[in-house]
Formats: sequence, C-alpha cells, structure tokens
Amino acid sequence: MRLVEVEHVIALVRRRGLETVLRELADYIAEDYRRWAEFDKSARYASHSPKGVIELMPIADAAAFGFKYVNGHPANQAEGLQTVTGFGVLADVVTGYPFLIAEMTIMTALRTAAMSALAAGYLARPGARTMAIIGLGAQAEFQAEAFRALLGIDRLRIFDIDPDATAKFRANLADRGFAIHVAESGPDAAEGADIITTVTADKRCARVLSDNMIGAGVHINAVGGDCPGKTELQPAILDRSSVFVEYLPQTRLEGEIQQMPKDFPVTEIWQVIAGEAEGRTGADQVTIFDSVGFAIEDFSALRYLSDTTNAPDLHRSADLLARPSDPRNLFGVLDLSPAYGIHA
Amino acid sequence: MRLVEVEHVIALVRRRGLETVLRELADYIAEDYRRWAEFDKSARYASHSPKGVIELMPIADAAAFGFKYVNGHPANQAEGLQTVTGFGVLADVVTGYPFLIAEMTIMTALRTAAMSALAAGYLARPGARTMAIIGLGAQAEFQAEAFRALLGIDRLRIFDIDPDATAKFRANLADRGFAIHVAESGPDAAEGADIITTVTADKRCARVLSDNMIGAGVHINAVGGDCPGKTELQPAILDRSSVFVEYLPQTRLEGEIQQMPKDFPVTEIWQVIAGEAEGRTGADQVTIFDSVGFAIEDFSALRYLSDTTNAPDLHRSADLLARPSDPRNLFGVLDLSPAYGIHA
Repeated sequence: MRLVEVEHVIALVRRRGLETVLRELADYIAEDYRRWAEFDKSARYASHSPKGVIELMPIADAAAFGFKYVNGHPANQAEGLQTVTGFGVLADVVTGYPFLIAEMTIMTALRTAAMSALAAGYLARPGARTMAIIGLGAQAEFQAEAFRALLGIDRLRIFDIDPDATAKFRANLADRGFAIHVAESGPDAAEGADIITTVTADKRCARVLSDNMIGAGVHINAVGGDCPGKTELQPAILDRSSVFVEYLPQTRLEGEIQQMPKDFPVTEIWQVIAGEAEGRTGADQVTIFDSVGFAIEDFSALRYLSDTTNAPDLHRSADLLARPSDPRNLFGVLDLSPAYGIHA
Repeated sequence: MRLVEVEHVIALVRRRGLETVLRELADYIAEDYRRWAEFDKSARYASHSPKGVIELMPIADAAAFGFKYVNGHPANQAEGLQTVTGFGVLADVVTGYPFLIAEMTIMTALRTAAMSALAAGYLARPGARTMAIIGLGAQAEFQAEAFRALLGIDRLRIFDIDPDATAKFRANLADRGFAIHVAESGPDAAEGADIITTVTADKRCARVLSDNMIGAGVHINAVGGDCPGKTELQPAILDRSSVFVEYLPQTRLEGEIQQMPKDFPVTEIWQVIAGEAEGRTGADQVTIFDSVGFAIEDFSALRYLSDTTNAPDLHRSADLLARPSDPRNLFGVLDLSPAYGIHA
C-alpha cells in the first residue's frame, strides 16, 4: 500500500509547481464530475461531540472506492491546532484491497481552491481579472493561486477583521506577482471586483456580504458557509442570483441555501461541467457557487495523488494488509511454529 | 500519528506470547462491553459491488473515535488473495486528530477469537475441555488458541471438507500442545464435544450443524454465519437454545437469527459480561453465541495496540496531518515563499 505523507505532497507541489498542480487537479475534478452518474454517492457519516465533528465521506465508482476522514473542531485554533485535518484512502473495488493512504489536509485546501476556480470558469464574466477575498484564513492563498492558475486573476482586494491574518496573506504572496489592495472593510474589498470570494471562519450565520455590496455581473464564490448554522450571505443576494451547488442533498443542509425555502431553485455544477446546463447566461447576471466540498473532489484528489506520486521520494510503502502465501493460512503469518513457517 | 503495520503486530505477538495477547485482548473487550451505554453505536456503512463489499465500521466513546475499514470479497481466495482484510484508526474526540492507524487483518482474527472465548467463559459448561472446530480456514487456529488461553480447552475434534485445510491446521498447531482428533465428518467432530465452533467459509445458508448433532449442555460458538444469506445452523437448534448476540440490530441481519422470526428472544452478550443478565443457567441448557463481529471489539483491539506498541520497534511514525506553527498558515507549509517560510 502506498503512503503519501505531508512531506510527499509538499515535494510534489514544489516539483510540479503550484499552478500546474492546481490546473491538473481541476482537470481531474472536471473529469470526475462529467461522469457524475457513475458514482455511488452517499451521505457522509458524522460523529458529533461537544468539541466538534468527525466525518467519514465515502464515494465509489465501478473501479475504486474512496473515503476521506475529516474533522471540524473550531476550538482547535486557540490551542494552536488546525480546525480541519484529514486523510484519505483509495481501494480497489474488485479485490477490496486499499492501495493508497494519503494526507488530505493540504490536498483538501488545494482541491477546494481548484474546485472554486473550475466553477468560476463557467460562472464568472469572461475577462474577469479582479477578485475580492474576504476572510484570510488557511484557505485564502490557495484560492488566490487557483484563480490565477485557471483564470488569470492577478488583482486581489483582500479583507480580514484580523490584521495578523492580512499580514500572513501578504507575506505568503509577496513575491508571487499579484497586485494586492488591502481593503478597509468588506464593502471596500468588494468594490469593483469581478469575483468575490467569501471564506471566513465564523461558525455562525454571518453577513459577510449584504445585498448592496453586490453589483451586476459579479460572481460570488461562497466557500466559508459550509455547515449547518454557518452562512455568509444575506438571503436577498441569493434571491436575485443564479445559484450553483455541488450535491443538492448535502448543500441544502450545509450551504448558503440552508437559509432559503426547500424549493429554492439551484443547478448542480456537474451539469454545467458536463454541458447539460448553462452556467452564466448574461453579463449582468449575479452567479453564486455555494461551495461546501463534496466527496467526488476528494476522490479526484486521491486519484491525482495515485497517478503522480509513483516516484520513490514521493511516497513510502506501508503494510497494513497481511499477505499470506496461502490466504487461508493467516495464522502462519505469525510464524510461531517452526514446522510451518510461512512469512508475511 | 502512529502507524502499526503487519510486521509490528507479528513482533508484538511474538514478544508477549500469543496466549497473553489473546487474554489481554479479551480483557480489553470485556472492559469495553461493560461500559456499553457509553458508546455511540452506529450501523456500518457498506459499499456493495458485484465482487464484494467494502465497509466502514465507526464507533466512539467520549474520548476516542474509532473505525475499521474492512472488505469481504469471496472470489479473492481463488486469486490467492485474502477474502477479508482491514485496517483501523483511532482519533482523539476532543481535537479530532487521528493518532493511530493499524493493520486489522491479523488483529481482527485475534479479536474475533478472543471474543468467542470470552463469551464461552460465560456460556460453556464449567470444566469444558473438548472443542469441535468445523471449518478450518483462516480463523480456525486463532479460535483454538483463544479457547485454550482463556478456558484451558486442549482437546480438539476438527473437520473440514478440504484435506488441505486440515493439513494446514495440523501443521500450524503441531507443536503447540493440543490433542487433536481429525474427524471424518461434522457429526463425528461434534460427538462428545463440550463446545462446537462452526467457522466455515461457505457464502450461503448451509447446514453445518443439524439438530440431532447437538447434545444436552453443549455450547455452540457460531462464527461463520456472519452476513445476510450466510448461516450454518439448522433453525431447530436455535429453537431449543439460549441465544446470545453482540448487537441485536446488526445480528438480526447478519447472524444465525436471520433465519428466525423478528421477535425471536436473544440476550446481548454485554449484559452478561456486565452482570445484568445470566449466561448459562443449567447443565443441560444448549447455548449459542451467534457471533458476527461488532465495532466495539475493533475499538478494543485498537485501544490495545495503542497501549502496547509504544516501543520504537513496534510502530512507525507517519505524518498525515500538516502541523503549521500557525494553524491559519497552511499555505506556509508549502514553503514556496522565501519571505515567509514556515516548515511542516
């Protein structure tokens, strides 16, 4: 079994280049969304506790079964720990044998950003060049890099209520060729932007964007509203926008549309990617990608790692499956009896 | 994160001794079953395909979340692969961080056998010394070793329709102090046994035991009937026996009692272990442990590994969680910008 650890993902990104990885990831995601009907899509399993939630997100096609372990623990940050971490597994459906275990903390950040930029390619105005980013936490730089890699966005208008977060963002992207305007407020950031990315960390219903901030033709990439009770947009914005989601049964519970009536009309983004539904249809239309993160994107990311980490310095081997030479002789693997020593 | 591979489990068993490990595992399992109400028990998640099933079995208490990945692919054996393999994970409920990934192929064989012997301690006649084992596949030797370790069973009456399986069993246990009678048939094996363990691999409703084979006072350890459509006992045996199960909602679907009416009376074994229900109540009573394997037993096995594999040669370290020094600076882990290099 192949084990892809954090150091291997870092080495992969440095070797291929961040922009290349983001573009390739977007390609893998698009390829999987195009074959939407081939996937066995399940609700995630969630184990709730007073401090947070641990989830298992399974998904399978006819060849591979994948799942991601992911936690969400808002209080972790005060302890110097990450709010969200994860790892993922791919297994062969035909034999049931797992063949890849990989870190999915960095990979989730990468696939989330790649997914946002992929969707924006269908939903933002052609020629969009300026993006506002409101909320400069762990995901912010990844969003900026993905939008440049896929759409050529190189002008950023950024805002966070925390000056340290702003300083971190500026330092991380200092030498990477972006023109960055540090805004004094959310409305200042949104002013004149073609795309507005909201990616705050507040675990409550917030009003990061209010209706009067949204001009005609804007695309809103709503990333931060991603669990029950956590939203970022004023409902009036949703009312006058075309809303695109990943997997409707999940987004109804976790996305911005949890604020809306059950019959609020949306389009699943796979339909747009597959050419079965239209994305943006007019220059003045306001579009929203109500992103919560779906298991297919993790599956794509794991497939990508499986295809790109074959080099000896991009993985380790791990034996989590005993492989007796006779499958009925598992006891022999213990090699306790000199008379019948079959080794693992 | 600690990674416990197959080689580490083998080293652990050889260092502590197989009988010690089986007894200690039974103690961990008993300890967990005694606090039954503290567990968040869930149905397993199953992904079915034409060749088999892949399952995720989650369980949690207030301190730890655990799950096991396990497959069941009957056609694997013809390909020289194992029918069942698995690995498991333990995570800290307070932070959501996983801290142990371990092989669970050998460990599942060990915990299944330890569970059988633990149950038999409450259900078999006092002084039982002879056990029949019908079905000599991957689990058979583990059952024999566990029953000796916990109950002192050292006389075996064994039968399998395949002479190769019988030869494998005899060779594996040749120097381990058992008196072994190779029976000519199932009824011959059952003759005079205090305990009858059925652990065949047939994936169908079989009649490994028929009613006329079962004398008064026998304990039946029914291990092989463990999924829908797979049973080993004639229903008439169940009708005149006291039946004990792990977790009723699961055993109704997967165990021997899938053949019986929905209101067929059974006792959950945790009640017996916790002293809230009686096990065997008379010398002539026929008892059945209708074992299918429950997530608590995997949780106990993972807890056991967590407590016993601290030595440097009993595990490896694996980094599946990026640990940025500032949790909001995940991008810095990539170390792309010399201006703000925070390393993983």
